Amino acid sequence: MASWLQIPKNSPFSLANIPFGIISSSKITSPVAAIAIGDYALNLSTFASSGGFSQLPAIQPHLNVFSQPTLNAFAALGRPVHRQVREYIQKVLSTDTPFPQTLKDNVTLQKEALLPLSEVTNHLPMQIGDYTDFYAGLNHAYNIGVLFRGPDNALQPNYKHLPVAYHGRASSVVTSGTPLHRPNGQILANPAANPKLPTFSPCKKLDIELELAFFVSQPNDLGKPVPISEAEDHIFGVVLMNDWSARDIQAWEYIPLGPFNAKNFGTTITPWVILTDALEPFRTSGLEPENRDSLLPYLREKRAENAYDIPLEIEVTNAGGKPTLISRSNAKNLLYSFPQMLAHHTITGCNLNTGDLLGSGTISGNEGQTQGSFLEQTNGKNPIKLADGSERLFLEDGDTVTLRGAAGTEGNYVGFGDCVGTILPAVKLDF
Amino acid sequence: MASWLQIPKNSPFSLANIPFGIISSSKITSPVAAIAIGDYALNLSTFASSGGFSQLPAIQPHLNVFSQPTLNAFAALGRPVHRQVREYIQKVLSTDTPFPQTLKDNVTLQKEALLPLSEVTNHLPMQIGDYTDFYAGLNHAYNIGVLFRGPDNALQPNYKHLPVAYHGRASSVVTSGTPLHRPNGQILANPAANPKLPTFSPCKKLDIELELAFFVSQPNDLGKPVPISEAEDHIFGVVLMNDWSARDIQAWEYIPLGPFNAKNFGTTITPWVILTDALEPFRTSGLEPENRDSLLPYLREKRAENAYDIPLEIEVTNAGGKPTLISRSNAKNLLYSFPQMLAHHTITGCNLNTGDLLGSGTISGNEGQTQGSFLEQTNGKNPIKLADGSERLFLEDGDTVTLRGAAGTEGNYVGFGDCVGTILPAVKLDF
Repeated sequence: MASWLQIPKNSPFSLANIPFGIISSSKITSPVAAIAIGDYALNLSTFASSGGFSQLPAIQPHLNVFSQPTLNAFAALGRPVHRQVREYIQKVLSTDTPFPQTLKDNVTLQKEALLPLSEVTNHLPMQIGDYTDFYAGLNHAYNIGVLFRGPDNALQPNYKHLPVAYHGRASSVVTSGTPLHRPNGQILANPAANPKLPTFSPCKKLDIELELAFFVSQPNDLGKPVPISEAEDHIFGVVLMNDWSARDIQAWEYIPLGPFNAKNFGTTITPWVILTDALEPFRTSGLEPENRDSLLPYLREKRAENAYDIPLEIEVTNAGGKPTLISRSNAKNLLYSFPQMLAHHTITGCNLNTGDLLGSGTISGNEGQTQGSFLEQTNGKNPIKLADGSERLFLEDGDTVTLRGAAGTEGNYVGFGDCVGTILPAVKLDF
Repeated sequence: MASWLQIPKNSPFSLANIPFGIISSSKITSPVAAIAIGDYALNLSTFASSGGFSQLPAIQPHLNVFSQPTLNAFAALGRPVHRQVREYIQKVLSTDTPFPQTLKDNVTLQKEALLPLSEVTNHLPMQIGDYTDFYAGLNHAYNIGVLFRGPDNALQPNYKHLPVAYHGRASSVVTSGTPLHRPNGQILANPAANPKLPTFSPCKKLDIELELAFFVSQPNDLGKPVPISEAEDHIFGVVLMNDWSARDIQAWEYIPLGPFNAKNFGTTITPWVILTDALEPFRTSGLEPENRDSLLPYLREKRAENAYDIPLEIEVTNAGGKPTLISRSNAKNLLYSFPQMLAHHTITGCNLNTGDLLGSGTISGNEGQTQGSFLEQTNGKNPIKLADGSERLFLEDGDTVTLRGAAGTEGNYVGFGDCVGTILPAVKLDF
């Protein structure tokens, strides 16, 4: 697919992508919907109000969804509408567009609606109701299990029967670029001491978790589980996510109810939501496809290709330093698919709402420098070398972490763009 | 305090209470704010638009908060406003009211704004952003610990240093009276088998948890912990809560990230929010006050009376049967206070929003028939006898659970009203 708009070959936002987001600018003070294309955002509010969707009758009654400060109303319209809108925009932007007067030959509207990405501010794409984080990265679960229990009992007995998950903190999900303070909290400086006495301290083992996450489009009612055969139609689209984790706070607090303060200080997502349709060409088998057939029926998918082949990477840049690529992984390193997560989440009757965010869990490979967290790479003992020669067991103040992920090939990337966060020093408390 | 309105002596909604909620009726189709007084709801939208607040200048710019379908806007006004409004309404309803023409002598407005509780529908009082559940009931944590690990290691090493908590599911919080289906899910029918193979089944160990919960009024920004000295001013008010729990689903799923599907199918709260000011006369010392002084400074409260003396009870009624009181507890059975929970939640910089709900954890006494859950009372072995002679290890289909709680004495009760839920049979799935 080729566009009349010049799109850099390495752009994550090729014509094959068309991800949706929420933007503002110096002129657009009230955030509106947009898509990303190459180095531009197409302001869908302006595009819609200028007749840009005139050749797409189905969307006419719903044009107001593009003028809202979140994508929730658009997402709630359902997958057939998302698909039509994406394909229509692809047509409008194609070299051989059947609607040249809509935008290709309409320089006035181009000037009004096509904004350089460098001039827009991205906002959270959805108003998030609940945020749930799964633990579907098989290699991650195994690696962590080895660290805590050794290789023979690395995976818990439930792991290959259900996608383990916990409820996360929705309020502190932030969009890429938002700096976060290193959290303060209780840590156990000397775990061997008896009795165990915690100290109050800035986190000393601040880590990342490389994840994908998806947003819910259409809700289900309380008491009405979503069959796995219908689960995909409840998924709006996918983002890249950094589930920042305070390992020392987590180690002390997490028994018996799981991580809480160790994760609630911030979770970073990319601002552009890739529709599942755009990821369709990159389907592949997930890990251990034979396990799929052993699952209880409510989790069994007909389709063998229930994962996505999306190369992922982690880059760390220390203050004033150069970027260091510390890990390469792939989205196919998940034991459970997004529809399986959604079906499991609702099997009790739990209701999901438009805008709910469901994370995959950390996505690690099973070789060196493919892990999705520092903990797995360093075990707190074997440092990672950065480009300037400095070493890291965990993150230091001033470090910037950039996650990236893109499927496809040059000129046709379907990518997330950068998921960036910088660690600020811990807040100094006077209490 | 006496009212010109006839208030039954056993009403939880005495003049000393004045709890806030959201109601609708056959005539009020768009939900509005109200307070409960005796057997009536005072429609605050009608009251405000009819000049009811004319003697309270401070609230004049904000009268629109009472016409909204949630209390979020009212809560966000902050504690000094809540206090003024409650005290003003108490004056208006007092026998010796200084403003007799407002309502006491205004029969027209009485007919318009005072609605029998039996004729109103209660709604969720707040739009809940995030819901967090703590584990601050010391006796509950001890009782559960004894069941799983014996009396010598009943409490985990962290328990007396921080209020353990987990993120809960906000979307499935429902208001009293909403029936819930018994959840389906994965359970381990034979835990001793090797390998462990789950079966798909309706939950067979459906339980309750008797809790209090509080709503957040004013938010804090991400990265700005709330000092414990200011925490109380971020608390709007308190409700009674039943954190329904599927024990068999929980036992299989909860390692290593805590309860998920075992709790996400429903959580029931009372619809009337008691302002913390109304509970002020019932302050008392919490459990183990000496522990307070050993806490890290960010959790140390100056006030010794950091709990509330509120008698609580659990009643179970089987289908067609009579009510059986199965437990009496008290809100003072908490090791941590609400301000301690809020301070701990935010110490990492986690932002709380107006409408967030924070639960106390199960509130159990330390004697027979004072426990806040079936699991503690029966250990799955020693049944509870109901009034009709039938026995319960856990809940059966058709059972109705009613939680109640009220502080104070006859004629002056500050109570929550009933927190009611009936268990419907599990949904039959054709997938």
